[in-house]
Amino acid sequence: MTTYKVRFLPQDVTVEVPEGTLLGEAARLAGIDVQMPCGGQGRCGRCAVIVKEGNVHRRPTQRLSPDDVAIGLALACQATVVEDVVVSIPPQEKIERKIREGKRAARVELPFPYDSHDQPLRKVAVTLDLPSLHDQTDDWSRLQRELARRYAMRDVEVSLTVLRKLGRVLRDGEWTVTVVLETDAWDRPNGPPRIIDVLPGERLENLWAAAIDIGTTSNVVWLVDLLGGRVMAQAVDYNGQIARGEDVISRIIYASKGDGLQDLQRLVIETLNRLLQQAADERNIPPEEIYKVVVAGNSTMLHLFAAISPEPIRLMPFITTVNQLPTFPAREIGLRVCPEATVDCLPGIASYVGADITAGVISSGMCNMAQELILFVDIGTNGEIVLGDCSWLISCACSAGPAFEGAGVVHGMRATAGAIEEVWVNAETYEATYRVIGGEKPRGICGSGLIGLLADMFITGVMDKSGNINLNLPTKRVRQGEHGPEYVVAWADESATGEDIVITGVDVDNLMRAKAAVYAGFSVLARSVGLTINDVGQVLIGGAFGQYINVEKAIQIGMLPDRPYDRFQFLGNTSVRGAYMALLAREMRHRVTEVGQMMTYLELSADNTFFDEFNAAMFLPHTDLDQFPSMKEFLEGAG
Amino acid sequence: MTTYKVRFLPQDVTVEVPEGTLLGEAARLAGIDVQMPCGGQGRCGRCAVIVKEGNVHRRPTQRLSPDDVAIGLALACQATVVEDVVVSIPPQEKIERKIREGKRAARVELPFPYDSHDQPLRKVAVTLDLPSLHDQTDDWSRLQRELARRYAMRDVEVSLTVLRKLGRVLRDGEWTVTVVLETDAWDRPNGPPRIIDVLPGERLENLWAAAIDIGTTSNVVWLVDLLGGRVMAQAVDYNGQIARGEDVISRIIYASKGDGLQDLQRLVIETLNRLLQQAADERNIPPEEIYKVVVAGNSTMLHLFAAISPEPIRLMPFITTVNQLPTFPAREIGLRVCPEATVDCLPGIASYVGADITAGVISSGMCNMAQELILFVDIGTNGEIVLGDCSWLISCACSAGPAFEGAGVVHGMRATAGAIEEVWVNAETYEATYRVIGGEKPRGICGSGLIGLLADMFITGVMDKSGNINLNLPTKRVRQGEHGPEYVVAWADESATGEDIVITGVDVDNLMRAKAAVYAGFSVLARSVGLTINDVGQVLIGGAFGQYINVEKAIQIGMLPDRPYDRFQFLGNTSVRGAYMALLAREMRHRVTEVGQMMTYLELSADNTFFDEFNAAMFLPHTDLDQFPSMKEFLEGAG
Repeated sequence: MTTYKVRFLPQDVTVEVPEGTLLGEAARLAGIDVQMPCGGQGRCGRCAVIVKEGNVHRRPTQRLSPDDVAIGLALACQATVVEDVVVSIPPQEKIERKIREGKRAARVELPFPYDSHDQPLRKVAVTLDLPSLHDQTDDWSRLQRELARRYAMRDVEVSLTVLRKLGRVLRDGEWTVTVVLETDAWDRPNGPPRIIDVLPGERLENLWAAAIDIGTTSNVVWLVDLLGGRVMAQAVDYNGQIARGEDVISRIIYASKGDGLQDLQRLVIETLNRLLQQAADERNIPPEEIYKVVVAGNSTMLHLFAAISPEPIRLMPFITTVNQLPTFPAREIGLRVCPEATVDCLPGIASYVGADITAGVISSGMCNMAQELILFVDIGTNGEIVLGDCSWLISCACSAGPAFEGAGVVHGMRATAGAIEEVWVNAETYEATYRVIGGEKPRGICGSGLIGLLADMFITGVMDKSGNINLNLPTKRVRQGEHGPEYVVAWADESATGEDIVITGVDVDNLMRAKAAVYAGFSVLARSVGLTINDVGQVLIGGAFGQYINVEKAIQIGMLPDRPYDRFQFLGNTSVRGAYMALLAREMRHRVTEVGQMMTYLELSADNTFFDEFNAAMFLPHTDLDQFPSMKEFLEGAG
Repeated sequence: MTTYKVRFLPQDVTVEVPEGTLLGEAARLAGIDVQMPCGGQGRCGRCAVIVKEGNVHRRPTQRLSPDDVAIGLALACQATVVEDVVVSIPPQEKIERKIREGKRAARVELPFPYDSHDQPLRKVAVTLDLPSLHDQTDDWSRLQRELARRYAMRDVEVSLTVLRKLGRVLRDGEWTVTVVLETDAWDRPNGPPRIIDVLPGERLENLWAAAIDIGTTSNVVWLVDLLGGRVMAQAVDYNGQIARGEDVISRIIYASKGDGLQDLQRLVIETLNRLLQQAADERNIPPEEIYKVVVAGNSTMLHLFAAISPEPIRLMPFITTVNQLPTFPAREIGLRVCPEATVDCLPGIASYVGADITAGVISSGMCNMAQELILFVDIGTNGEIVLGDCSWLISCACSAGPAFEGAGVVHGMRATAGAIEEVWVNAETYEATYRVIGGEKPRGICGSGLIGLLADMFITGVMDKSGNINLNLPTKRVRQGEHGPEYVVAWADESATGEDIVITGVDVDNLMRAKAAVYAGFSVLARSVGLTINDVGQVLIGGAFGQYINVEKAIQIGMLPDRPYDRFQFLGNTSVRGAYMALLAREMRHRVTEVGQMMTYLELSADNTFFDEFNAAMFLPHTDLDQFPSMKEFLEGAG
């Protein structure tokens, strides 16, 4: 096979690759990370590089104009090597390694009275009889004998990993050994105890475990000491997979190509290992002393975590390979905790309603609120909705898309330093004021800012109920831009980029689609059980993004139902909290499974009323103003 | 750290290694296999190499004379790199890749009436309901549902390995799938079925498994079709670990150094993978269609197989880490069969009485021979002895050492082409005649040849009952050699090496120690239960070597007890046959465990009569001639 040299600048790394290799793949081999937010589909244009010497073969893409090509631009995900080339990689938007500042992790309270016997992990120290020429019992039988004698444990299971260290540990501890076991795990009630680890001597001071949430955007680790049940350290970071696609669909597409699946698994495991290390460092322990891990996350994230192809998730009829993964030892996926630590992934119920939602339902407490109709919403990269009470649950997923995380919006960005997180539009001057995360000059607008902006633009008449920007207002802030009408939120001299920060008509349309999808989801769910959205007693909002939503403004744009403010509760990351609860008590772990079994899933694409509801919601706040009584009153008062 | 270049000739490979690296280690890094039959202890001198340029640091060794050092000789296992060097590796005795020729694998008969339902592996084909927007059950639940419906299987266990292929397999097979399961395995009776593999479509034509014996010297694989229970292919080869030590002690020492343990595991797995491939090729199947493996072998071999340190086995008080390994999937040790194939290692009972002996007892049928006292002997690199009847069993191990496999005997060799396998000494002329394996010119003498030679030298008076060679005989064949008295078996002009093939007084002494150890074992065992060796009704001889022993001559030298010829039975490789039987029926598998539990182990080094018995056996045939009535009669007749 013919091979060619690809030299990357400014890193000045050269790799030799077979003819036809994608530039993106060559960069990866060179150890250079080129971001592909669309998953390498040639859609987003973010992986553009400049070919300085030699030529590449460019697959057709609408992202590059003939002028772009003339100056050497090529998409790393769409250009293949056909001769020796020198390629320059422009500076890329770095994924900030910090989630929204100024919000230090709050102390997590115990969610219920904790008794360490309610969870299956156990640590015991035993001293064995010394071996001799007259008692030649093998090490493993000697340990079993003592566990049977002292704790009546029978048929104890052990792995090669533990046996490989057993001889050394027994002798180093002079025949006193601390044994970490899992007994009566949720997936094998009354099953035999399984040894997770052995340590020399008596080491009973702690019993570490972790709750993990794998979000499409953010990953969270809570380190828990199961002796007291408390969260002792927290760590959070962006999912390393973001560089391979912003949303689940991009990731699924990326996973289906070459060794994309393995690459995505590696990236998320690297992120989690870093977070586990960070949390362990905070408590000054090696991560290898973490003996159990409970994981929540959406179905695609859990498939990628286990390196199971998620491809069928995006293909009709949208079937997952597995909603309830079996438990497995951490070593099988390279998670850097104790090699035999049990990894317990919570159950999902469908392709787009995953374990993050079953965990969320548990931690929201919605199943404890008797008699009231509850709406649980998790708005992250996707929007998942659960409606029900103690006796039934119905759920759906709406592809809100990542618009509220900044994608598909010209000056959209994630909620990191430099993002406008709140905006106010003056009803008389149409001037904008805003607040920026970190207090610095703005670089763009994040989700909560976009919701506030949309609401205020609508309320003040900068745009009408269809989202059309009114160009006839007496302000320079509305104008005809390159891509149609736009409104200037921040002028160039105020911004960190030296450019005007604007919202365009196209942006507004994308955001309206997202909010309409969410609201149509509410409507279809309610109607499917013969109710209306206004029968809802409580609205519980989960998800990191949910925490920052201004309810009033979200109602004004018709994203949340028009219920009194005191009916809303913000729960933060319900997914990791659900994992934490499942870690603390067998009963909670069983309840997650029951929730999964009880919940009915409504596939919106198979529902013939969804499209009508979606279209009806493509107005501000909605075609049917009667669904928004407070807005109706306000608008009629204003009119 | 300072590094130096080591260039190896004639391969002309250069590696750069840190100062202080052993030449043997450098050779390994260079991909050159230097044999170290003594395990790298500097004892055997077989790893001698010639330093052509530069110097090495030689640790003191008795194997090299000042003259040897002067011409550049160095032991690869004892010389370290202290500057750039060029090293020449002399041709090494190649380990023949063929076991004793002319003995084609015999057809193995079914050991008992076979019913495939008696063993736990099962293959079923099911057709699943098609998924749709209205039935979005995940793939795994869909399969579980069908297994429950058709076969009433509940709580079926599955691994990530299987889930990773499940989605593809179901779609490739258009929702018809063949499932390989293990149900009611010996270590979890009534436990849930475990899925081993899934295949697209209906694939019910065979059900492959393998029985394996890991001997210190030879490895054997029997490929079995569990539909009919028959052995369909056999493969045998030397254990690749031989290059790192001839006997278990050398291997244990080698395993305790650096990454020796991993190296030894890799070597045996490579050997087994080659044999599995070879057996599979014979039946034209991929080895990945082998779904279960039952393994027998001595305790050290099974520890190395699972990469568990065998070090405590050679240290007082000789304790194994584990006598009954847990079952584990083949992928965990890189065995190239189906990744989830269950590897079931049979139980051993002590450091020197391993699973090869429990398997041997089962396959010998000694537990079925009511009322008779049975002696079961497995003479391989070590000698293991079991005495008992249906109601009790007692065992011991005697470190016969590898003398009968050619080690510690100047012209000793393994039973391959060129080995003298039988010798006759003329009682009047003292001339020797012999038979050579393969009919070619002799290169040395193998175990059966050595026994025959010893017997005839004794009977004819070439040596006395203490093993002293009589130099006063009227033949040139007895003479004073470099290392003391010796007898010439083959003259230089008859031999393949162009040298006289001799047996020396030192060789005789080593062989007498070996046979005395075995016989002393018999005596101590019998005495420990208040019997004598002549109470034995049947003598069952297992082990590959056992097959070739001439009983009459073995009795003449006092290695086997003096019982009538018809009381002896040769069983061949009882270890692999025991593994095969355990594979065929749950009941047999349980019986192996029972044998392990029933058998008492006598540690000879803790027995204060062993030394006396050993000394008494250091004569030909024995100090106490009454124990050898037929020899007594013969000798008294002769006298």
